[in-house]
Amino acid sequence: VDGRLVVAGVEHRYLTRVRRARVGEDVEVLDGDGRRLRGTVERIEPTSTTLAGLAAVAVREPLSVTLALGLGRPEPLARIVRAATELAVVRLVPLRCTRGLSRDSGAVEALVDRWRRVAAEATRSGGVVRPPEIVPVTPPEAWAGTLAADAGRLVLDVDGEPWPAALRPRDGEPAPRSWALAVGPEGGLTDEELERLVACGFVRASLCPLPLRVETAAVGALAALRALVG
Amino acid sequence: VDGRLVVAGVEHRYLTRVRRARVGEDVEVLDGDGRRLRGTVERIEPTSTTLAGLAAVAVREPLSVTLALGLGRPEPLARIVRAATELAVVRLVPLRCTRGLSRDSGAVEALVDRWRRVAAEATRSGGVVRPPEIVPVTPPEAWAGTLAADAGRLVLDVDGEPWPAALRPRDGEPAPRSWALAVGPEGGLTDEELERLVACGFVRASLCPLPLRVETAAVGALAALRALVG
Repeated sequence: VDGRLVVAGVEHRYLTRVRRARVGEDVEVLDGDGRRLRGTVERIEPTSTTLAGLAAVAVREPLSVTLALGLGRPEPLARIVRAATELAVVRLVPLRCTRGLSRDSGAVEALVDRWRRVAAEATRSGGVVRPPEIVPVTPPEAWAGTLAADAGRLVLDVDGEPWPAALRPRDGEPAPRSWALAVGPEGGLTDEELERLVACGFVRASLCPLPLRVETAAVGALAALRALVG
Repeated sequence: VDGRLVVAGVEHRYLTRVRRARVGEDVEVLDGDGRRLRGTVERIEPTSTTLAGLAAVAVREPLSVTLALGLGRPEPLARIVRAATELAVVRLVPLRCTRGLSRDSGAVEALVDRWRRVAAEATRSGGVVRPPEIVPVTPPEAWAGTLAADAGRLVLDVDGEPWPAALRPRDGEPAPRSWALAVGPEGGLTDEELERLVACGFVRASLCPLPLRVETAAVGALAALRALVG
């Protein structure tokens, strides 16, 4: 009201503890819908920060990234889920692949339940407004069929196209603001799984010419995507 | 000899287990000095792969990345060291900062000894030829004074310049092939430490506008650097 905003909760903690804002400083905050607002810090109280002179910051449409992860050992996947939440991934897709953990059992349900807990905890302690949506376990091809027509599609592959080139928009189209990133399980996607994703419009993208563990590749690719396309 | 190369050890394991090369396929391998060679798989044996028609691949000077890490809790640092080794960082610098683990004690030595073990193990199981050099613990400013004049210099800072812009070469200079990346401890570098690094030519670079844990930021920045500059 009156060009003022009282900020509490995660954004207040972000402003005071991470950003270490002081009275009189211009800062930016996110509202609940991912819009960015700029204002001047007027007052800092223990549980809230008041901003004055509020204005919306003109930004590109927020980047919407879906990360699909081949199921495998729980620990590396939990660390990927935690980093993906910090990096504001909007949707996580557990992929049932040929390699890795493919059996349809309670183990898969327990694994995905754990993703929910990790994502919720990373949201509480981090800077994002809401945890990623976690959809039911699905095979890669079925998932690929659900993507929006204009979404950028990448599948990590050490033999794929090097990274910045792999992200170039095709045929003079605008750069996508929505991306789907598929990361195979430890042991990799099979050639057949890769080819099916390519048939669904996925680009085989290589982050670097070295073999990386799934964890390094997934977190690195998310950061490199965000760093490159905003 | 005779345009043929017998590949054993890490590169053989990479070709057969990670790359899953087949006879007749064209592949690339690294020699011990980081040069890239291309050849056709002629024979695969249990402990070696023979390549024929060998030729050097013309590549840019290999990227040389030094990663300096503010000391803090051992577990996240060990995971960063592991990922940095996979991503072929050439030098790791343990930074004694104001925040984080700063006391000069056996704890620091044990921490850095552990880095050596983690880097050696990641080299054995990964695709790089040699582990990063690990230099003695040093304060940030003393380290900054040792860098080559033409090295790109980045310090991660959530309020810094957004990522691709922060890496642009200055004043029409060629893009550096040597980079120094500083990552503060949990709790961050102090304003004074940041300002001193800026005085030494460091650019405050922001990987994404969200606060990230040190682990996510460091691994993400290394991958984004490699993905962007090759």
